[in-house]
Amino acid sequence: MAASRKPRTAKNAETMAASQRAISISEFFTKNRHLLGFDSPAKALLTTIKEAVDNSLDACEEAGIPPELFIEIRPDNPVNLGIELSSQEIEPAKKKNGNGKTAASASTKEDRFKIIIEDNGPGIVKEQIPRIFGKLLYGSKFHSLKQSRGQQGIGISAAGMYGQLTTGQPVVVYSSIGAKAPAHRFEIQLDLKKNEPKILSGDETIWDKERGTRIEITLTGSYKRGQHSVDNYLEQTSIANPHVHLTYKNPKGETMVYANSTTELPPESVEIKPHPYGVELGILARMLQDTKSRNINAFLKDEFCKVGAKTAETILAGADIPPRKNPKRMVQDDVQRLLDSIAETKIANPPTDCLSPIGEDLVMAGLTSGMEAEFYTSVTRPAAVYRGNPFQIEVGLAYGGKLPGDELAKVMRFANRVPLLYQASACGVHKAVLSSNWKSYGLQQSKGALPTGPLVILIHMASVWVPFTSESKEAVAHYPEIIKEMRLALQEAGRQLGRHIKRRAREKDALMKQSYIQKYIPHIGEALQEILLISDEEKDEVIATLTDTLERSRKL
Amino acid sequence: MAASRKPRTAKNAETMAASQRAISISEFFTKNRHLLGFDSPAKALLTTIKEAVDNSLDACEEAGIPPELFIEIRPDNPVNLGIELSSQEIEPAKKKNGNGKTAASASTKEDRFKIIIEDNGPGIVKEQIPRIFGKLLYGSKFHSLKQSRGQQGIGISAAGMYGQLTTGQPVVVYSSIGAKAPAHRFEIQLDLKKNEPKILSGDETIWDKERGTRIEITLTGSYKRGQHSVDNYLEQTSIANPHVHLTYKNPKGETMVYANSTTELPPESVEIKPHPYGVELGILARMLQDTKSRNINAFLKDEFCKVGAKTAETILAGADIPPRKNPKRMVQDDVQRLLDSIAETKIANPPTDCLSPIGEDLVMAGLTSGMEAEFYTSVTRPAAVYRGNPFQIEVGLAYGGKLPGDELAKVMRFANRVPLLYQASACGVHKAVLSSNWKSYGLQQSKGALPTGPLVILIHMASVWVPFTSESKEAVAHYPEIIKEMRLALQEAGRQLGRHIKRRAREKDALMKQSYIQKYIPHIGEALQEILLISDEEKDEVIATLTDTLERSRKL
Repeated sequence: MAASRKPRTAKNAETMAASQRAISISEFFTKNRHLLGFDSPAKALLTTIKEAVDNSLDACEEAGIPPELFIEIRPDNPVNLGIELSSQEIEPAKKKNGNGKTAASASTKEDRFKIIIEDNGPGIVKEQIPRIFGKLLYGSKFHSLKQSRGQQGIGISAAGMYGQLTTGQPVVVYSSIGAKAPAHRFEIQLDLKKNEPKILSGDETIWDKERGTRIEITLTGSYKRGQHSVDNYLEQTSIANPHVHLTYKNPKGETMVYANSTTELPPESVEIKPHPYGVELGILARMLQDTKSRNINAFLKDEFCKVGAKTAETILAGADIPPRKNPKRMVQDDVQRLLDSIAETKIANPPTDCLSPIGEDLVMAGLTSGMEAEFYTSVTRPAAVYRGNPFQIEVGLAYGGKLPGDELAKVMRFANRVPLLYQASACGVHKAVLSSNWKSYGLQQSKGALPTGPLVILIHMASVWVPFTSESKEAVAHYPEIIKEMRLALQEAGRQLGRHIKRRAREKDALMKQSYIQKYIPHIGEALQEILLISDEEKDEVIATLTDTLERSRKL
Repeated sequence: MAASRKPRTAKNAETMAASQRAISISEFFTKNRHLLGFDSPAKALLTTIKEAVDNSLDACEEAGIPPELFIEIRPDNPVNLGIELSSQEIEPAKKKNGNGKTAASASTKEDRFKIIIEDNGPGIVKEQIPRIFGKLLYGSKFHSLKQSRGQQGIGISAAGMYGQLTTGQPVVVYSSIGAKAPAHRFEIQLDLKKNEPKILSGDETIWDKERGTRIEITLTGSYKRGQHSVDNYLEQTSIANPHVHLTYKNPKGETMVYANSTTELPPESVEIKPHPYGVELGILARMLQDTKSRNINAFLKDEFCKVGAKTAETILAGADIPPRKNPKRMVQDDVQRLLDSIAETKIANPPTDCLSPIGEDLVMAGLTSGMEAEFYTSVTRPAAVYRGNPFQIEVGLAYGGKLPGDELAKVMRFANRVPLLYQASACGVHKAVLSSNWKSYGLQQSKGALPTGPLVILIHMASVWVPFTSESKEAVAHYPEIIKEMRLALQEAGRQLGRHIKRRAREKDALMKQSYIQKYIPHIGEALQEILLISDEEKDEVIATLTDTLERSRKL
């Protein structure tokens, strides 16, 4: 093979310069699509639905509407089109391609699906539709510190891009923002070189839905059951979101309904300002340039949380900066002193009522409804802070009963109420579970492995900013503060489990001794009868007395 | 706490639209810096050095220059400036800030470092310097299919951005492209909102180096020893790159030299064209629009590897497309048929001589020099293909000797000769090791855990495109084809290890039996003497004969 190699063609700085150029963000993610969760057909299907559901739930909750979602995975077989219309189906206007054929005439494969997600949310104003679905890095959640499912402005446009790459079909969006405005129907593609939307069509349309959004993405994927499936994801979503009503039609045409168990929305998540402890020199310098505050004292109070008059005064005194100084006049040296002084000033933790945990009762209810175990417990930790961001950890445990006893524990992970199904071993949750000492709670655990036993571990992280290990939001990054809180929650729940397991072991032990003695009581009776020559009645009395004594001793 | 919440402020589509906006790629990565490998101070230090070393080695090899690198981590204490100058130190010109003070006058902390990386590579033409160091997603390697360390055009500018965020200091770059052109010195910052370079200064300078690049990045970080350390990274780099000469000065002022063991560069990695099997509808459609080929037949032969006249003919016949058709006239239906026909046509695998594995001998040499074991083995698999990209897996094992026996096996991971130190459990390598059956090779292994024993496992993946799980390039994504090859390589090496372990066990067993018998031979002699009344000489002869027989039987 080496012989067939070309001779070394040494390059120099000039020849190298010729190939140095900019990479568009959409080109980048096309080549690195696994970063977005599109590395396998099965995962592509799940990721698409997950991103759309995330957006729908966020929008409904923000608008104060109890969410009702319809989700369908339809095999994209043109022969069936028009026959197997679901109740919520909308007949698409015949679409002209360049070749004058309808879109449906393109050749199909078994693994080609049309994904439909429809919600009763607030809808999207028509000017924003193309960019939300046809541009990566566009959204409303990135710039705010607020607990929400979506946060990066990538997900749904990436799903559309994947559909476009694999089937050439545009994203179809229906949206209606209320009875007074007309509904719209858009067909959108993403210009891969420019990362800008291409609008194929975008007209008013008639839609019987007064308010809501419907998305249709055609893609190649693979529908599977099991741990990583859409079915499992939707089931877990319903566990963590009891206020959501889901109707789901799978590719086999089976319809499942996950009804909401409450009509009450979770407490509204509140947007907070950044906390001074989480800010860095470069960010602080930029905030100083961008601020509308006219002096540095006002700047500190306006732009950060938990900085009142007294704290601002302490910080500025420590930094030796006059309170009336213009923020835009702060030079780097000032910024550094300001930062040093912040680090030395005692500032209260950020507010935590901006977080909306599931709550111990609902975690418990979710576990109880989801599996048959003999013991359940749940723990919601107080809120904590990493890099200035408040977050909160919840843990639920289910043990025994019908759970399989000789397998590794099953771990269910959630971030801001969204189930995380992939990349378990990359997740901070995994590290926290692995590094907890389960032996001390009466479970088996090998070095470097999950505990073994009939155990399900549920962990939920709620935060104004969940740090994921990749854009596909499948695993939580290993920030030490987060791992620590997870371990504390696991310990608290683990101790309760440990007490249960010990009590069960004691009971089992006592039961065994009892049954052992019980077995011999009749023999003792007979032996006594032989020795003392007592009557059968007397013998029966002795047996009854012994049995009774045993019963009473066990109860003590 | 619920009481203190504001009442729900239901939003609608219009109020939501007000907050929907574009996110710049640099803002995105500032907030998601853990994606780039900057989630902790220790990791930030390593990532910065790793990105700079990657670039230096790629550039040297591309230019055919045996790489000589100087790396320094200097505590950024202004008091010491000018005193502790290293031999390769350049006195920086006094830099004026807005406040007229020199940069060194800014307050410093213990965890502030200046990172210096200097190479003897081809240098960078001055027009390109600002964008390479001051713009994310800019580079030469993204658009080519070629084995290289860098590939995304993010790393080094991200390191500069991190330095700027944490210390406000610009990246300083010296570059010289040869004796005939002047050297240049640049100070560059990254405009976070625009993702464009800001040139603070960029002048000709005098540098005694005829050709090369020197980078200085000032950042807050944390210097640690151990598994995840810069020291360990450089040591592993030298194992996988025996042609590289490294001089490294750590923050304690200790200088280490990892000398090159060969002056021969690895075979040049060749750029290849994409393979038809790896292409998708959307990509194919774009290639058809962008091509310079005038007909579809020429397009197939020009733009893909392994497509000759005959293969092109078969593909086009299968797709029912005339060979002279203009590629720009292909409508979506044609593209789909072309793709279907490609899938059904037998096409040779992509060329594999574009890959440059380390090789079985050098893997073995690296392991032998790095640790004292009793058994070494290595396997280089034939090249394979995932999504049209050729790749090759190598495995090395070291066992026994002075390796610790009661711990989990140590796994060393490399991708295109770059050591991967973080996110082990997120890596495809981890999955491949975990899912291999080590018990069948005579090792202990608990369910869901790494094998236990005195074992070091080295895995190297060489590819024209390594799919990493995040931009920080710390773990290989779980593509089934890649995991499968890794498992095959581990099996092959594992069987050799298994034979060794079994032989050792047999030998140990035989030795034990022998020593057991040996112990009784003198007693047998004495017993015989007593029974047969033989002389002491005769007894000694009997003992010698028995011992000799035993020796010979063992050898058989």
